[in-house]
Amino acid sequence: MELSTAGEYAIRGMLVLASRHGDGPVNLDEICRVRGLSKSREYMTKIFGVLAKADLVTAVRGRGGGYRLARPPKDISLLDVIEAVEGPLALNLCQHDPPQCREPGYPVRPVWDDLQAKVRAALAGKNFAQLARRLP
Amino acid sequence: MELSTAGEYAIRGMLVLASRHGDGPVNLDEICRVRGLSKSREYMTKIFGVLAKADLVTAVRGRGGGYRLARPPKDISLLDVIEAVEGPLALNLCQHDPPQCREPGYPVRPVWDDLQAKVRAALAGKNFAQLARRLP
Repeated sequence: MELSTAGEYAIRGMLVLASRHGDGPVNLDEICRVRGLSKSREYMTKIFGVLAKADLVTAVRGRGGGYRLARPPKDISLLDVIEAVEGPLALNLCQHDPPQCREPGYPVRPVWDDLQAKVRAALAGKNFAQLARRLP
Repeated sequence: MELSTAGEYAIRGMLVLASRHGDGPVNLDEICRVRGLSKSREYMTKIFGVLAKADLVTAVRGRGGGYRLARPPKDISLLDVIEAVEGPLALNLCQHDPPQCREPGYPVRPVWDDLQAKVRAALAGKNFAQLARRLP
């Protein structure tokens, strides 16, 4: 029950773009440098490819190119980024669509339903404008 | 961010033992049959070995043997079972001990701290006596 490494890196990368929003594109080397990310360029390229496909970032080609947010940071939530990278949030099998806990009346399901709603709401309620403002 | 298959099976197995608490040991074939679990006997043996090591179940050897809860179902929470199988709950790197989000002032950390507390409390607040009572 833990956020994937890809999810961690995506959030950190988006945080850099949010803090520079309006200043032009930021390239991947710079993104990694700013947040001390140690993964390879290939790894980050893959993650940013996924974020671009989800319309969260836009790739800017050529000299001085890189990535910028595809929309204002206040309109991008933690949940948007996590679900872009990991797929729809599902704390357990019951939260799949369709649910994969087949047993009728499975008594743990309401616990997961409730938790899933809480986690979704918390992650959807935090946007990258708020987060970037809190950067030291 | 999803419960592992091992976690799902452990919860379902514990639910069977909780519903039969006081009736003597239940063997693994019976546990799988009751809850429609399709994994191999070897897989379940491994999981119940982990649960026994965590003092949640007791193995009873010999004819008529199997497993029984090591303590009353009201004293075993969902969190106990999940942490026995998956290790200490950690929704992200910041929740490791010691925390592995090294950046001072990382602004996403309070979000994870808050979520982790909510998830822990919800899972710790549900015990197997409550859950077993709700079985159809």
